[in-house]
Amino acid sequence: MPLVVVGSVAIDHVETPVERRNNLLGGSATHFSVAANFFTSVQLVGVVGADFPEEHTRLLADRGIDVSGLHVVPDGKTFTWTGKYLPNMNDRETLEVELNVFGQFDPKLPEAYRRAEYVFLANGVPAVQMKVLDQVPGRRLAVADTMDLWITTQRDDLERLLKQLDGLVLNDSEAKLLTDTENLVAAGRAVQAMGPKFVIIKKGEHGAMFFGEYETYVLPAYPTQRLVDPTGAGDTFAGGMMGYLAQREAFDPDTLKTAMAYGIVSASFNVEGFGLERIRDITRDDIEERMAQYRRMLSF
Amino acid sequence: MPLVVVGSVAIDHVETPVERRNNLLGGSATHFSVAANFFTSVQLVGVVGADFPEEHTRLLADRGIDVSGLHVVPDGKTFTWTGKYLPNMNDRETLEVELNVFGQFDPKLPEAYRRAEYVFLANGVPAVQMKVLDQVPGRRLAVADTMDLWITTQRDDLERLLKQLDGLVLNDSEAKLLTDTENLVAAGRAVQAMGPKFVIIKKGEHGAMFFGEYETYVLPAYPTQRLVDPTGAGDTFAGGMMGYLAQREAFDPDTLKTAMAYGIVSASFNVEGFGLERIRDITRDDIEERMAQYRRMLSF
Repeated sequence: MPLVVVGSVAIDHVETPVERRNNLLGGSATHFSVAANFFTSVQLVGVVGADFPEEHTRLLADRGIDVSGLHVVPDGKTFTWTGKYLPNMNDRETLEVELNVFGQFDPKLPEAYRRAEYVFLANGVPAVQMKVLDQVPGRRLAVADTMDLWITTQRDDLERLLKQLDGLVLNDSEAKLLTDTENLVAAGRAVQAMGPKFVIIKKGEHGAMFFGEYETYVLPAYPTQRLVDPTGAGDTFAGGMMGYLAQREAFDPDTLKTAMAYGIVSASFNVEGFGLERIRDITRDDIEERMAQYRRMLSF
Repeated sequence: MPLVVVGSVAIDHVETPVERRNNLLGGSATHFSVAANFFTSVQLVGVVGADFPEEHTRLLADRGIDVSGLHVVPDGKTFTWTGKYLPNMNDRETLEVELNVFGQFDPKLPEAYRRAEYVFLANGVPAVQMKVLDQVPGRRLAVADTMDLWITTQRDDLERLLKQLDGLVLNDSEAKLLTDTENLVAAGRAVQAMGPKFVIIKKGEHGAMFFGEYETYVLPAYPTQRLVDPTGAGDTFAGGMMGYLAQREAFDPDTLKTAMAYGIVSASFNVEGFGLERIRDITRDDIEERMAQYRRMLSF
């Protein structure tokens, strides 16, 4: 079952305590697509400028990701993000953001995408995310991500969006901000009460919590030995999770939990290299192997 | 198989954003004993002053905890701790500490305790912890806790102790401090390289990580709905874990992982009430029921 993702495609410059790397292929839709593509066919919607390197588009297309929804603005520049990780590798500073063409992103889904049943709205302006939903009237599962900026500045739109979502994925500090609650369990439930059938709170190196109609649970992160660059880990998590759901064509509680585990395992590969460097070189077998290790880790 | 614990017995005054409670029965050996006692017989070694309320001793004794090793200093005052939890309930400030008789704690194990095979050295001066080890020459499993103060001020003694331990339990910030490492996986391995056969890093609301000779894994905390007072959660964790190991008379890798899960489940009850208020009212059946939920939570 194809899966549509709408989000950013970016050029990242990333600095860690060990190394600085420039001109990495980044963006939420990019990380999501590469992860989801291990499980199902992915239709990407995004926007880039004329400066966007041909090799980046080719990398995505060569993996079988449908990039017919990647709009190129001839006289525009691609969204760029420059960030620096603090020594704990969990906190980061954004050094520079140039939204460029992503600032006027008005996603138009190609006709072939509009029959999608599985949709992921990567982090973006809530009003724009809502306009995407209108273009996929036959959707069975729509899940979105959001961020602190929209919680603070676009609260009304975000609340309207939440009522139309099946699932929301956000990180721990965002969940606390959205609900003005310090306890994560309480925060997750409060977000769920705002509309989504399920809410997933990402806790970075500490894993992720799930809040559904019938259950609340938490799964730890896979303890990888080499943490090189966490950029895109959250989108990779969402990609692995949504990819598995779309592949299975199901989102019952058991399938959702397994999907969350696939998301966690996918993210653990993403952080082992800069940008896509690690995850682009693995196979579905590598994911299955680590998934088996992850299951063993949680069995006693 | 009896289990010996050596540590503090204290009077706690605890302030949370919701409530302040005074004169709670606290201390590392107390929390440890109550948890371990669900699994095995516990022999407690500690010291209190003449002011220590008779009802506190009775509470422990009535549960079957051997308090013949609880030394009462006739003209002394009991160790008291006053602390305040910040709104996130994970961080806390120590408002006041009066070590009193605990400051001169020189544990002498009753003859009956010296045949112990399972020993837990709750947080204390490393040199004192080492003197306890000398009194249990037939020990099969000795595990200790420590804290930032000893890492900073008693480093040499602590390093000597580490070489004699089977296991060390410490929290995440302490592991980072001890190894001058920000990455927890790397920190855990570095601590293990200092001597202990296994190391457990407690991450509070995020669960615990295990580092053994053959494996590294992480288990999440049980997501309890009501977080009332986290005081003693780490010692309750250790008590549930060590209690299970002593009951099973084994500490092979599989048993250790199950023991860690019991520790996590035990701690989840402890935080649901001030001091011992919640955990003293539960039964082993309650622990087993939540353990089954915890297993289900981690199955997919």
